[in-house]
Amino acid sequence: MAAWSELLAGVRGVLLDISGVLYDGGEGGGAAITGSVEAVARLKRSRLKVRFCTNESQKSRADLVGLLQRLGFDVSESEVTAPAPAACLILKQRGLRPHLLVHDGVRSEFDQIDTSNPNCVVIADAGEDFSYQNMNKAFQVLMELENPVLFSLGKGRYYKETSGLMLDVGPYMKALEYACGIEAEVVGKPSPEFFKSALQEMGVEAHEAQR
Amino acid sequence: MAAWSELLAGVRGVLLDISGVLYDGGEGGGAAITGSVEAVARLKRSRLKVRFCTNESQKSRADLVGLLQRLGFDVSESEVTAPAPAACLILKQRGLRPHLLVHDGVRSEFDQIDTSNPNCVVIADAGEDFSYQNMNKAFQVLMELENPVLFSLGKGRYYKETSGLMLDVGPYMKALEYACGIEAEVVGKPSPEFFKSALQEMGVEAHEAQR
Repeated sequence: MAAWSELLAGVRGVLLDISGVLYDGGEGGGAAITGSVEAVARLKRSRLKVRFCTNESQKSRADLVGLLQRLGFDVSESEVTAPAPAACLILKQRGLRPHLLVHDGVRSEFDQIDTSNPNCVVIADAGEDFSYQNMNKAFQVLMELENPVLFSLGKGRYYKETSGLMLDVGPYMKALEYACGIEAEVVGKPSPEFFKSALQEMGVEAHEAQR
Repeated sequence: MAAWSELLAGVRGVLLDISGVLYDGGEGGGAAITGSVEAVARLKRSRLKVRFCTNESQKSRADLVGLLQRLGFDVSESEVTAPAPAACLILKQRGLRPHLLVHDGVRSEFDQIDTSNPNCVVIADAGEDFSYQNMNKAFQVLMELENPVLFSLGKGRYYKETSGLMLDVGPYMKALEYACGIEAEVVGKPSPEFFKSALQEMGVEAHEAQR
């Protein structure tokens, strides 16, 4: 087995996932995964640049970072790359006004975005808010557009909570794609653009990074 | 343009769709489409065999036929081929016990089916019952099975009501397919087996039928 020093030769930065890597979600906010608080601290003491790259789309970065700090992690909001802020950037660049089908916990990320007279739809892991009525509304907005544009914050199939497996945003993305005969634009992992933006924010080239 | 007599040469039976062909659904049950009541009556007076073939999966055949009769149509329950009874036949043949994610209006069609300790999932156009909780339950049932089997009563994208476009069962079928990494078995149109069973019930070969 290669030594760590060998594996890390030429590596200048590390992208860390959050959910399922640093902590497991669940009742009361969740729990840090054993050893992860110290691992982050060691990385930050090393010569490596560190950035957190998550598909979390139920919480704002502020709420997520608050939770991680309470669990003991050394992390700040400016170190987190998340799909909602990335989507806001795209919406502004392309002059798009979204109809939002998102969890209330992440809505504040879109505070600066014009949502009047929508000309696209943004969906995220909305949990219980994926009601028939809300899905049908998003569908109707898309069908009324000449060029329906759908953004999906991630495309995960499901995730695990203490209460069991939970449907993620991906299945609902597929539902709207099929209903409207369109293909969604995924903002978040595994989109290469999303990883690139995280590396840019870290000031590291792709070949210099390890995740 | 060919004369009707020419087009119908060799045709012994006619399969008629119901929703959007005989009547349009909506508030108060819906309304007969102009000319359709008389058209059905004329077909029944002709030498042609007539059968009704629908993907309606929100109502039982009894409720559907009651509605059509009130609108003036000459139709009886035994003349209707619908996905729910076809699914019941398959479930019995294969010894399957379904978890049902269906509209309350069609649940009576499954009265004779054992739904204890489910080893498959049946979804139909459930309307408002396509809540996150109900979808997640169907998903969890499938994920707990060694060989997940999902039946979808039809795979329509959407249908039109007086209040606007409404998501049909198809998008929700796609959602569960993606979440579980499986392919659903469609019971209803456009499945060839479904059309064949309608023809069998009518006593007509495929090449002798016109729909």
